[in-house]
Amino acid sequence: MSAGRSTEDALVRRIRELAARTTGAGVRVGIGDDCAVLETHPGTRLLATTDLLIEDVHFRRRWAEPADLGWKALAVNLSDIAAMGGRPRWALVALAGADGTTAEEIDAFYAGALELASAHDTVIVGGDTSSSPYGWMINVTLLGEATAPLLRSTARPGDTLAVTGTLGRSAAGLAVLERETPSGVEPAALAAVTAAHLRPYPRVREGMWLAAAGGVTAMMDLSDGVGIDLPRLADESHAGALIDVERLPLDDATRAVAAALGADPLAWATGGGEDYELLLACEPTALARLQRGLAEAYRIHLTPIGEVTASGGVHWRSQGREVTVARGFEHFAARPAASGAGA
Amino acid sequence: MSAGRSTEDALVRRIRELAARTTGAGVRVGIGDDCAVLETHPGTRLLATTDLLIEDVHFRRRWAEPADLGWKALAVNLSDIAAMGGRPRWALVALAGADGTTAEEIDAFYAGALELASAHDTVIVGGDTSSSPYGWMINVTLLGEATAPLLRSTARPGDTLAVTGTLGRSAAGLAVLERETPSGVEPAALAAVTAAHLRPYPRVREGMWLAAAGGVTAMMDLSDGVGIDLPRLADESHAGALIDVERLPLDDATRAVAAALGADPLAWATGGGEDYELLLACEPTALARLQRGLAEAYRIHLTPIGEVTASGGVHWRSQGREVTVARGFEHFAARPAASGAGA
Repeated sequence: MSAGRSTEDALVRRIRELAARTTGAGVRVGIGDDCAVLETHPGTRLLATTDLLIEDVHFRRRWAEPADLGWKALAVNLSDIAAMGGRPRWALVALAGADGTTAEEIDAFYAGALELASAHDTVIVGGDTSSSPYGWMINVTLLGEATAPLLRSTARPGDTLAVTGTLGRSAAGLAVLERETPSGVEPAALAAVTAAHLRPYPRVREGMWLAAAGGVTAMMDLSDGVGIDLPRLADESHAGALIDVERLPLDDATRAVAAALGADPLAWATGGGEDYELLLACEPTALARLQRGLAEAYRIHLTPIGEVTASGGVHWRSQGREVTVARGFEHFAARPAASGAGA
Repeated sequence: MSAGRSTEDALVRRIRELAARTTGAGVRVGIGDDCAVLETHPGTRLLATTDLLIEDVHFRRRWAEPADLGWKALAVNLSDIAAMGGRPRWALVALAGADGTTAEEIDAFYAGALELASAHDTVIVGGDTSSSPYGWMINVTLLGEATAPLLRSTARPGDTLAVTGTLGRSAAGLAVLERETPSGVEPAALAAVTAAHLRPYPRVREGMWLAAAGGVTAMMDLSDGVGIDLPRLADESHAGALIDVERLPLDDATRAVAAALGADPLAWATGGGEDYELLLACEPTALARLQRGLAEAYRIHLTPIGEVTASGGVHWRSQGREVTVARGFEHFAARPAASGAGA
C-alpha cells in the first residue's frame, strides 16, 4: 500500500463499497465519517473486544492467503463475543500492508472478512489503513450485545467443565502448514486440519444458545489452548480445577496427522491453541440437557472434561495419576528468519 | 516483548493494574475477560473509531518516547470523537512491541495513554498485546456517545467554514524533530511546536460545546491537513467550498520555525496534517456567538476561513486570485532507511 493520501482516499472508497455489501440494523453512519454512529438495543450490555494479527507472529504469507487473513481476523474476535454468549454487531477493521500490496489482495482480504461477518449479521462500520514498513498487520475491534453475558469469573466449585467440538485441530493444521505435508494421511484429513487453522469457525450461535439455555455458570473461548486458558478461568473464578486428560476430545484427522508427523496430539489439544472452541462451567445436572440441545440445534458435541474445585490450582489427571500438560501456544519467534513451529 | 503466554499474562495483569487507575461509570467488566462489558446511556448514539500508529510510518522512536506514543494514540482517537461532538467513554488499546521492549517502556506507554484518557473520563477497558517482528505498532479503538452527533455530510451552501486554534504547528514540530533544530528560534517556540506534534491536545470539550451550542451544521477534525480534509467534508456534503488562504490561522511559533528553516508555513497549515483542530460549517449568523462562546469557555479562537458553495469543488483564493495549496500529509516512506520528512 503506498502512503499517499489520495491513494488512501481511493482505498477508503473501495473499502466502503465492499463493506456496503453487508448491511445491518443499527448503523446510522458507517465508513466515511470520523466515527461510526451506531444504535444499541435498550436493555442490552455492549461487548467490545480487539485482536491483533501480525505477519510472522500470528501467520505467514507463505501459507495464509489474504482472504484467509480477513476471515481469521474476524473469526478470532467473533469468538470473543461468542465466549460471552453475545450477538456480534459491528466491526472496525484496521489494515497495514507492506509496499507492493495490490488492490486485488486488499479486495480478497475484505472478501474473506465480509464472508464471515455477513454470516453473523455483522457490519464493518469503520477502520483505518496504513502502509507498513514490514508486513501485514491487522487489528479488528468487534462490538456486540448481550442481555446477560457469561463471564470467566463466575464458575463455582462442583461445576462440570466441558468443551465444544474437538481440540488440537488448529495446531495439527499449523504443523502441516509450517513444517511439512505428512505422507500417508488422507487428503480430507489434511484439508480439515489446515482449514481449522486458516479459517476457524467461531461458535457464535452455540454461544448465544448456551447463554440462553440456563445452567451455564461461566464461559470463555479457547484461543491459547485449554492448558493455559482453563487456569485463567479458574483464577478469575478464585477456584481450582481437576481435569481428566483422557476426556479431552480429539478427532480422527488430528490423530492421523499427529501419527504421521510423530507428534503428540494431546500436546496439541492442551497447548496448541487457536481452536476457538468454547470452554464452559455448568451445573452438573444441566450437562445432559446442554449436550442434547447443542447436538440437536448445531450437531456439536459438548464433552465434559473435569470439574471446578474449591481451590488449589488446576490439576491434570491421566489414568488416576497427576500429570503435567503442554501449556500455551508460543507464537513464532519475533525474527522472521526463525523457523520454530507454533505448537 | 517476548512471545510467551505466561509473559503475556503477566503483562495483562500489569496493564489491568495500570488501567484500573482510570475508573468510570458504565464498565461492568474491564480488562481480564474475553470482552469488556459496557453500559451505554439510553437515548444516545454509540460512536466508534479506530486508528493505527506504526513505527517509521507515523513516528520514529528516535524522537517519540513511549509516553508520547501512548498519549498520541489516545489523542488521535479522542479527536475523532471530538469531531462529532461526542463524549469519549471507553478505549481498547492494542500494542505490539519489538523484542527488547522493557516493562518500563510499557509502563511509560500506558502512563501517557492514561494521562490523556483520565483527563477525558475515558477508561481503558480492553486491548491486546503481541510481539512484533519489526517495531512498535499501536491500535486504539475508542468508543463514545452523543445524543446528536455532528457529521461531515451535512454542510449546506452558504454556511461559513471555520477552524479552531491554529494550523501548521504539528508540521512545524515534525520538521524540527525529523530534520534539525533551527538556530535563532526561541526555545519556547520550539517547545510549543514539538509538543503540538508529540502530544496533540484533542478538542473534546470544545467539540461537545459546539454540538450543544446550535448553529453548527457539519464538523470534522483536521488530521491530514485542511488541504485534504476540507475537500472530504465538501464531497461528503455534495457541496463545494471557497477558502481565503490569507485567513488560515498561523501562530507566531510556527512562523518563526518556518522562517528559520526556510519553509512555507502556509504549506504546513494546508498540507502538514496532525493539527487535530476542528473544522466546522455553521450558519453565518451563528459565527459570532460560537466565537464568543469558545473564547469564554476555553480561550480558543474560532477563525472563519471561507464558505460552503453549491458545487464545483474546493477553490483556494489568495489576494483575489485562485491558487493551489499543498495538500495532504505524506507519512514517512515505508522503508525505515528513507529519510523524507513528513511535511
